[in-house]
Amino acid sequence: MPDDAALLTTWRGTVLPQWVDYNGHLNDAYYMVVFSEATNALMGMIGLDEAGRKATGHSIYTLEAHINYLLEVKQDKAIEVQTQILGSDAKRLQIYQVMLLAGTDTLLAANEQMLLNVDMSGPRAAPFAPTVMARVQVLTLAHRQLARPTYAGRTIALPG
Amino acid sequence: MPDDAALLTTWRGTVLPQWVDYNGHLNDAYYMVVFSEATNALMGMIGLDEAGRKATGHSIYTLEAHINYLLEVKQDKAIEVQTQILGSDAKRLQIYQVMLLAGTDTLLAANEQMLLNVDMSGPRAAPFAPTVMARVQVLTLAHRQLARPTYAGRTIALPG
Repeated sequence: MPDDAALLTTWRGTVLPQWVDYNGHLNDAYYMVVFSEATNALMGMIGLDEAGRKATGHSIYTLEAHINYLLEVKQDKAIEVQTQILGSDAKRLQIYQVMLLAGTDTLLAANEQMLLNVDMSGPRAAPFAPTVMARVQVLTLAHRQLARPTYAGRTIALPG
Repeated sequence: MPDDAALLTTWRGTVLPQWVDYNGHLNDAYYMVVFSEATNALMGMIGLDEAGRKATGHSIYTLEAHINYLLEVKQDKAIEVQTQILGSDAKRLQIYQVMLLAGTDTLLAANEQMLLNVDMSGPRAAPFAPTVMARVQVLTLAHRQLARPTYAGRTIALPG
């Protein structure tokens, strides 16, 4: 039986050469490329992969993202993303993603996101399709048991 | 005489085909690619272009970013980024970037970022070099006259 309250592993791969900048590390923007691919995987888990998008006429848009960059990471390093559901309503999904050195607890970055279900015939915001909503609710309920993560609910401000 | 209190135009270009996803619009991650290029331009304005990084041994790392996605934008559209300095201290720069349809007030996205000056010999956080600090202070002071922008200081939360 799968552990419903476990974080979802939504991406595994390595830091590609084209993602590395003049600082010799994963560029800030390409953390978001990885997180975006992880969100695509999550969409598959709730029934909004390509076939699901076609069947429902719905897709997911990102409304808001807040990334904390915690450690730099070099080319070719193996990394993974784990995703936690923080909450949801009829058409929104609030998620939290951590990027880790693969197979370790070494936290490279954290990303909180608000996602919106969109009826692509508008496009306009719309409630999740019933089959999608059922999966969203199962995950939301299961992840309610998890601790509130460190880098969620943050505001950007200078210290002091 | 340049208007010191004007927003800085830090990027101009078009939405490239490789930035567009299955939703037929600029992918969430590639907004951040554009904002990252705009930050590179800002680095040039404070003396941390490639020559400045070599001369000082310093570079800029992004500590935190908070993006609000406001409107979708399609391939080939002309867009621009304008940057406002929200604050600074001895080693940090807090900025706000807006992505607009080029030559209009149509706001596509807003991005608040905290940037850190880094001595690359560590790498470790370090005060800005004096010549860089001088430019940071001029910009910070000039932009203090500007209104606090709408999408700064936000926290991600479900409504209600």
